[in-house]
Amino acid sequence: MSAVSIREVAPRDGLQNEEPIPTGSKVRLIDALSETGVRRIEAVSFVHPKAIPQMADADEVWQRVARHPDVRYSALIPNTRGAQRAIAAGFREIEVVVSASTTHNRRNLNRSTDESLDDITALIPLVHDAGATLEVIVATSFGCPFEGDVDPDRVATMVARVRADGADRIAFGDTTGMATPRRVRDLLSAVRPDLLHFHNTRGTGLANILTALDLGVTEFDASVGGIGGCPYAPGASGNVATEEVVHMLHDMGIDTGIDLDRLIETAELAEKLIGRTLPSGVLRAGPRSRLV
Amino acid sequence: MSAVSIREVAPRDGLQNEEPIPTGSKVRLIDALSETGVRRIEAVSFVHPKAIPQMADADEVWQRVARHPDVRYSALIPNTRGAQRAIAAGFREIEVVVSASTTHNRRNLNRSTDESLDDITALIPLVHDAGATLEVIVATSFGCPFEGDVDPDRVATMVARVRADGADRIAFGDTTGMATPRRVRDLLSAVRPDLLHFHNTRGTGLANILTALDLGVTEFDASVGGIGGCPYAPGASGNVATEEVVHMLHDMGIDTGIDLDRLIETAELAEKLIGRTLPSGVLRAGPRSRLV
Repeated sequence: MSAVSIREVAPRDGLQNEEPIPTGSKVRLIDALSETGVRRIEAVSFVHPKAIPQMADADEVWQRVARHPDVRYSALIPNTRGAQRAIAAGFREIEVVVSASTTHNRRNLNRSTDESLDDITALIPLVHDAGATLEVIVATSFGCPFEGDVDPDRVATMVARVRADGADRIAFGDTTGMATPRRVRDLLSAVRPDLLHFHNTRGTGLANILTALDLGVTEFDASVGGIGGCPYAPGASGNVATEEVVHMLHDMGIDTGIDLDRLIETAELAEKLIGRTLPSGVLRAGPRSRLV
Repeated sequence: MSAVSIREVAPRDGLQNEEPIPTGSKVRLIDALSETGVRRIEAVSFVHPKAIPQMADADEVWQRVARHPDVRYSALIPNTRGAQRAIAAGFREIEVVVSASTTHNRRNLNRSTDESLDDITALIPLVHDAGATLEVIVATSFGCPFEGDVDPDRVATMVARVRADGADRIAFGDTTGMATPRRVRDLLSAVRPDLLHFHNTRGTGLANILTALDLGVTEFDASVGGIGGCPYAPGASGNVATEEVVHMLHDMGIDTGIDLDRLIETAELAEKLIGRTLPSGVLRAGPRSRLV
């Protein structure tokens, strides 16, 4: 493997799990990320502001962002209304979430997994008619914080359905950091995604990515600075930190297109904008090439 | 692989890089660790109290520890004087450090690597005559914070010498967290250790262990709670956290003999004794089996 594609998710998945920050700070973060060489950024989500106040200014953020010609920006949506807003705002890459476990799906989306799958069936033609693509993110793919282990066959069945419905891409979300190298092997031997999204809640983030690389996966989400906590464990780490992922990949001779030094500068900026110490080792200690 | 042997190093390598704590707290930590099922504990080091004040009470700590019959306790020593103290105190497993990079060895031991190797040559018969074993820990094996990359052939040459001199065991130390999966493969393809000691300074701790497992290594150091910072990066993580290692291994079906719940309780105790938030995800969030 010579190249891996990173999607930067700090502006959406990261900030959604932090205390709200000003609109201008979000724009600064996205603009700085756009200059790191990363080619894909999950910029905002179009959700109800009462459900997720951190994303209430999604339209304004997106209008003010300096869109880099080499970067593909995407938006997450929870339902048809969100998809309409994303399309109206000009997004052509749209993501929708459904949890593999019904308890988590009910808590997150107030409906059963089957109801969400029906929604996605109806959503796909709407998105395609607008000239956009739809990625289905299967959340809690590696385990559910309410139900525990998730059967890989259940995930495989859901993937088969949404692929048959015309979903353009599939991602597996490790929503609360329950993935481990063993669970990655178990799930990927049952069904393959286009992209993997890991959290580092229990320290296995890079070990999971290493396992997935070994199995041929070449697309990963990551969040600069490790922005984004774990909603069920106060103080726990959230998303894998982009600079830790890039640091390991570059050391392996795998290209990401990202300038690591500039990325670390952006993590420093993110730490200032958010106002808390972020859980990224490469942010704290620098790359291994940085000598004393 | 069905079993892995963990050596718990929080009482020595961990505490050595923290603010000093009372003798009674050290004894409590070692005694609690002895009840977790771990079979090996690096208990103290016999170093000059001016060099490392955190270990000034090593003799008293060791006298007060409730020695568990199933646990092998070891002591680290820097020189002949330390070895004599360790032997007099009753230790039969002794570790000595030499850095692969001369700059680090000079900073750490005030002598060149070759001088330290000469010391070890003289030390081995002294230790053996006392009925004890000597493990040589090659520090900065995966990189030096002053010199950068370390040539695996250099480590291999050092290992060949100390093995020829009669060293009983070889460990490779990732002293400042410069190991990565790629560097683990590079070094282990040149020379094999008995045990590996990783830090999690740049997030690769578990990924490194996963790589080493794949190459057949079955002995690892770890520090409960991830105790022990990085001396060159304030606030950075130190040793891999024992509960994160055990959590991943047990999930893979690999036995360690350790009761994970009891280990996490000991990490909670360690956090209280040390008085700072420790950088362990499994301590914060619990094992993946702990549901909301």
